[in-house]
Amino acid sequence: MGRVLLHAGAPVPFDAMCGPMQGAMIGALLYERWAAKPEDAERMLRAGEAIRIAQCHDYGAVGPMAGIISPSMPLFVVKNATHGNTAYSNMSEGIGRVLRFGANGPDVVERLRWIETTLAPTLKSALATGGGVDLKGIQAQALLMGDEVHSRNAAATLQFLAAMSVALADSDADRQKTRETLRFIAGNSQFFLNLSMVSSKAIMDAAHGIEASSVVTAMARNGVTTAIRVSGLGRQWFEAPSDMPIGLFFPGFRQEDANADLGDSAICETAGFGGSSLAASPALVQLVGGSVTEAIAYSRQMHDITIARNPGLSLPALDFAGAPCGIDIRKVVDSGIRPVITTGIAHRQAGIGQIGAGIVRAPMACFTQAVTALAAALEVRHPEPC
Amino acid sequence: MGRVLLHAGAPVPFDAMCGPMQGAMIGALLYERWAAKPEDAERMLRAGEAIRIAQCHDYGAVGPMAGIISPSMPLFVVKNATHGNTAYSNMSEGIGRVLRFGANGPDVVERLRWIETTLAPTLKSALATGGGVDLKGIQAQALLMGDEVHSRNAAATLQFLAAMSVALADSDADRQKTRETLRFIAGNSQFFLNLSMVSSKAIMDAAHGIEASSVVTAMARNGVTTAIRVSGLGRQWFEAPSDMPIGLFFPGFRQEDANADLGDSAICETAGFGGSSLAASPALVQLVGGSVTEAIAYSRQMHDITIARNPGLSLPALDFAGAPCGIDIRKVVDSGIRPVITTGIAHRQAGIGQIGAGIVRAPMACFTQAVTALAAALEVRHPEPC
Repeated sequence: MGRVLLHAGAPVPFDAMCGPMQGAMIGALLYERWAAKPEDAERMLRAGEAIRIAQCHDYGAVGPMAGIISPSMPLFVVKNATHGNTAYSNMSEGIGRVLRFGANGPDVVERLRWIETTLAPTLKSALATGGGVDLKGIQAQALLMGDEVHSRNAAATLQFLAAMSVALADSDADRQKTRETLRFIAGNSQFFLNLSMVSSKAIMDAAHGIEASSVVTAMARNGVTTAIRVSGLGRQWFEAPSDMPIGLFFPGFRQEDANADLGDSAICETAGFGGSSLAASPALVQLVGGSVTEAIAYSRQMHDITIARNPGLSLPALDFAGAPCGIDIRKVVDSGIRPVITTGIAHRQAGIGQIGAGIVRAPMACFTQAVTALAAALEVRHPEPC
Repeated sequence: MGRVLLHAGAPVPFDAMCGPMQGAMIGALLYERWAAKPEDAERMLRAGEAIRIAQCHDYGAVGPMAGIISPSMPLFVVKNATHGNTAYSNMSEGIGRVLRFGANGPDVVERLRWIETTLAPTLKSALATGGGVDLKGIQAQALLMGDEVHSRNAAATLQFLAAMSVALADSDADRQKTRETLRFIAGNSQFFLNLSMVSSKAIMDAAHGIEASSVVTAMARNGVTTAIRVSGLGRQWFEAPSDMPIGLFFPGFRQEDANADLGDSAICETAGFGGSSLAASPALVQLVGGSVTEAIAYSRQMHDITIARNPGLSLPALDFAGAPCGIDIRKVVDSGIRPVITTGIAHRQAGIGQIGAGIVRAPMACFTQAVTALAAALEVRHPEPC
């Protein structure tokens, strides 16, 4: 498919991208060896030189934060067993200085190559031996184990690691690569994030395209705008400027350093995870700030703007009520409650990386535009005044 | 040390033992090849033929349920890194028909041999390569992940499995044995129970023998009586008839089938886990019955009868307050609140096994006897009436 780079969120030209997305784009050119130096990469991207830029979501994919997917990156392939659709995501790079937060140094590029040559083939061997992994089953268990499976994935990652380590013990995968792979996953409690995202994408894609449906099937942020897609409104994005996440910062950083809300990971919230299931994850408030009572209140708010609770995703702290699923644009506009998203926070400049984690809400203007569009599509008009 | 069998709880002669403990004793004789048939084993035990019976606790050990430890069983060896003392426990047999619940068929004996020849040497290789495992660290993390680390050990087991799988990938352990070991642990979410118990034993032994201290350093049940040891009162057990656990039963079983409270596992509660940390484990109420609100209330009650909260063991649902630690016999008697214990439930007949899980309280008479003994030891008398 030639020189295509996918990114998170709705379309945005290179010049208008936020710092971390520009940084990650540059890193991807270095990784692909399309450019030898960051300055060359930046010049090529600004000139639009034979590099096409598109959205992850348009290729059935999702990527966390900047969400850059380039042709050489190995992807997770996830099938919706009930509906038959397929979704894709890239693989976790770990934490700290990583491409998805806009870092692009030699260490970052080297790790991407290691993913390509070691992590991906090893996981492929594990899956060939052990069969597929039931991602929704892992997500459901993780909700009983203190994860909301967006910003906290500690229990989900351990479950995935258990499945891989058993399968790898049975496989003829290279021993050294197996060692490195298991160590990498064991050392990265957010490894499962990409898998939670792509599972959520596979779930919500099956709900897309239902006539007249007002359910949100994607929320995605490109670091400038937050955009939503609605089941009954085709591929149109309804966009508005992203809010700033409020949260806790790593030592040496502060709120002013933060980039606006970024990444495809809010797909998790559309499927009932993240902010929707914050009641499941009291421990997360240690990372994102706030109190346990607030965490529970967020889940209750999400219940007010969704169409159902998923009985397969139980939230222990709410006496095992199901996670609120299916954000309804009408309920958001009616109630004035904006969806809650748990998120990592990137430095607003290219090349630095993650500086914290927090909570953000999707902008109301996304939802009012979508309701107006749905009303127009259905030829619903305000009732005549009496 | 010859033919010695250790069992849970305070001393009890074979004829007076509960059904599951008798069944497990018989199974141990078959496993040790001291008897070829259950009838022979039972006859030898009734005759006291050259088999000495003693308590796990007197050998620095703990065993879940019947708690039988025989000379050929491999043990976990756990050091208290701060105080230098050492504690021991046997290894988890998994769930269902297992020795600790009184089953003793050929499948049970075969699994004990597999533990000896496969599980133990494989874990030994892992520890030789990876070094020791920080059990208290795992317990503390597990409290953030929905375990109370007595009757629910799902997250703790996954953490232990992660440590073992990484270490085994680095070791030259036998491949087939590694496969079997990893599969066994991955298929047994209670695997960590024995490790939580022995960690708790190593913690509480360090608190034993403090002059005049009224802190409980062990609670143990032999299936007939519940017994406690108190820091300032030496090796004396203060015993009273065990209560019946109230809980949920596996299909086909009911409350009338239950044996009285059984096992050394209540050592967990003395160190701040189990009933003390029920607030951490809302998901456990699905196994033992009750509501999430009740689970939180149990932790608050335990706070009322303990001397401190352990800031290293935080309970998210209580806004990260520490787990209540150090049951004080005086507070139990003053308040009338009996310690809460989460527990498995054995069938009262030998040879059947686990039939459910529930909650039980330690008998008040243990504590009143201990307070009286402590008062006598300190020559405290009731004040003269005016």
